[in-house]
Amino acid sequence: MKVALTGIKPTGVPHIGNYVGAIRPALELAKTCKARYFIADYHALNACKDPEEIRKMTLEIAAAWLACGLNPEKVLFYKQSLVPQTFELMVILMAFTPKGLMNRAHAYKAMVQANLESGKDSDDGVNMGLYTYPVLMAADILLFDTDYVPVGSDQFQHIEMAQDIAQSFNYNYGKEYLKIPQAIAREETKTLLGLDGRKMSKSYGNTIPMFASEEELYKLVMRIKTNSQTVEEPKDPETCTIFAIYRNFATPDQTESLRRRYLAGGMSWKEAKEELFNVLNAHLTPLRERYNELISQPDDIKRILEEGSARARELAAKKIKELRQVIGVD
Amino acid sequence: MKVALTGIKPTGVPHIGNYVGAIRPALELAKTCKARYFIADYHALNACKDPEEIRKMTLEIAAAWLACGLNPEKVLFYKQSLVPQTFELMVILMAFTPKGLMNRAHAYKAMVQANLESGKDSDDGVNMGLYTYPVLMAADILLFDTDYVPVGSDQFQHIEMAQDIAQSFNYNYGKEYLKIPQAIAREETKTLLGLDGRKMSKSYGNTIPMFASEEELYKLVMRIKTNSQTVEEPKDPETCTIFAIYRNFATPDQTESLRRRYLAGGMSWKEAKEELFNVLNAHLTPLRERYNELISQPDDIKRILEEGSARARELAAKKIKELRQVIGVD
Repeated sequence: MKVALTGIKPTGVPHIGNYVGAIRPALELAKTCKARYFIADYHALNACKDPEEIRKMTLEIAAAWLACGLNPEKVLFYKQSLVPQTFELMVILMAFTPKGLMNRAHAYKAMVQANLESGKDSDDGVNMGLYTYPVLMAADILLFDTDYVPVGSDQFQHIEMAQDIAQSFNYNYGKEYLKIPQAIAREETKTLLGLDGRKMSKSYGNTIPMFASEEELYKLVMRIKTNSQTVEEPKDPETCTIFAIYRNFATPDQTESLRRRYLAGGMSWKEAKEELFNVLNAHLTPLRERYNELISQPDDIKRILEEGSARARELAAKKIKELRQVIGVD
Repeated sequence: MKVALTGIKPTGVPHIGNYVGAIRPALELAKTCKARYFIADYHALNACKDPEEIRKMTLEIAAAWLACGLNPEKVLFYKQSLVPQTFELMVILMAFTPKGLMNRAHAYKAMVQANLESGKDSDDGVNMGLYTYPVLMAADILLFDTDYVPVGSDQFQHIEMAQDIAQSFNYNYGKEYLKIPQAIAREETKTLLGLDGRKMSKSYGNTIPMFASEEELYKLVMRIKTNSQTVEEPKDPETCTIFAIYRNFATPDQTESLRRRYLAGGMSWKEAKEELFNVLNAHLTPLRERYNELISQPDDIKRILEEGSARARELAAKKIKELRQVIGVD
C-alpha cells in the first residue's frame, strides 16, 4: 500500500472551500493509501508569534479534520512538533540542498519582488523559517518514505525540490535511502467560489466557515452575489456561484434536477439559495455537531494527537537511525 | 557557576597549535565553569559526505580531548547529533532570524566574493547547511543557557548573531527565556607558528601533529625554518619560531634560561631545536600514550560520548519543553 502524506497548516476553523478542496479528497485518499496527516505547527510559527493563537488554531484544525471523518485509528494523525526527528532530517538535508535551489522558490521570489517594487531591501521581512520552509517540508515528506503528496499547483515546486534533495542524498551514498515522492495534483476545478464570486479565501473575507451555526449559514448563503436576472428568465448554472457550490454537496440527481430548474426559468435566486442552504445544512449539520462536541473537549483532541505522534515517532526514529548510519554519525 | 560551551569540529587529530590555542585554554576554563564541550558532527556533514571519514574524525578528536585531560565526569562531553533538541531549537530560532542577518555573515560573504571574482554564480557551491550554520550554532549555544563561548576572532560575529536571535525571541515573548551568551576572546597571541614560520595550520602543511611518535616529532622539530646566523652570533628569541613554540610548553624558568642562551650567543640552531624537542616530547609523551590507548578502544570512546550525550539530552529536553510552552506548541 502506498504512503500518502499531507501537511495541514493550523489556520483555525476551515471554510467549505478547504473542505471540498483539501479535507474531503485527503480523507478519500486515506481509503486506498497509508495516510500520514500532520499539523504543521512549526510552519505556523513563521507567521504567528502568539502562543495562545497557535494553541487555538491547532486545536481547531485538528477538531475540524476529526469532525470531517478522519479516523485516527486508520490515519496516522500527528503534530509536526511532536516528531522531532523531522528537524534532525532537515539539518541532514540542508547539507544536500544548494542555496541556489532555495533562491528559485516561487514563494521566496514573490516576496523579493514585492519588496523591490516597494523600494525595500530585497530580503525585508523574510525570516529564515520562511526561506528554509521547502527544506522543512522535504524533511516532513522524506521522513515517512512518502509515495504521494496531494498538492495544489502552488506547492508543486516544493515537491520537485524534495525530489532534487532526495536524489542528491541518494546519489552521494549510492542507494535509494530516501524514497522519491510524487505530487498528486488536487483538482483545481474543485476550487470553490466565495460569496462574492471570487475564489473562496479568508483573505477575501468571502468564505462560508464549515461549522457556522444554522442561522449564520442561512445568512451567508443569502448573501451570495447573483446577477440581476428576473425570476422568469432562464439562468446559466455554469456561471452561477450558487450552483458551483451546490454541485459539490448535492447528489448527482439533485444537481441534475437543479440544473434543469436553472435552464427552465421561473426560479428566483432566493429559491436557488434555499436549495443550496438545505443541501449544505444537511451535509454540514452532523459535522458541526461533532466539531462542537470535540472542541469542547480539548484534552481529547490533544490525547488523539499525542497518541498519533507517538506512533509517528516510532516510524521516524527507525528511519533516522538508518540515515544516521548512512551518513556516519551513528 | 557560569556555563561555558565550546563546539569542536571533528577534523581529525589536532596539531599542537590547536592544543595551545583551543584545547588547553578550554580545559583551563573547565576548572572554573560548568563546561559543555561537544563534537559538532552535523557541522562536519556540510563539508564531508564520507561516512567512514566522519566516524574516524569524530573518534580521533574525542580521543584527543580526552587524552589532553578532559574529564568526562566533570565536563559534559557530548556529540551534537546525539542531542536532537538542538535541531528543534534551530527550527524555532529560524522564525526569529531575519534572512538579512545571514546575508551579512562574514563566512558567507567571503564565499560569495570568491564566486563573483571567478565569474561564477554568487551562490555557487554554497549549501544550505553552510548558509544556515550560524543558526545551528546559535541553537547549540542557547540550548544550554550558556554564559561564555570561547572563540577566535573569526567566530565573534556568530556570537553576536546568537545574541541578536535570542534577543528577538525574548522581546517577542516578554521575558529572558534565552540567556544572552558572551564571547570570550581566545588569546590570539597564542596562535602558534608552524614549521615554516607562518601560522600553524593544516592547510599550510606546516603542523606538528599532537600525537606524532617520538621519531616523527624529532624529525619535524629539526625541520623548523631558522635564519642563517652562525653559532657564535647572539640570537633574537622574539623573532624565532623555535622559541615561540618552546615558551608554550616550557616552565617559566626553562623559558628564561633559554632566552639567556639566545642572547648570549654560542648556541647553534640545532641545540635550540634539541631543547625544544626535549620539552615538547616530555609534555606530549603522556598525552600520546593516553591517546594511543584510547584510540585502540573505540567502543570506550563511544560509550563516554553516549553517556555525556544522555546527560546533555536531559538538560536539553527540559529547556525545549519550556520553550515549547512559550511558543505555544505544547
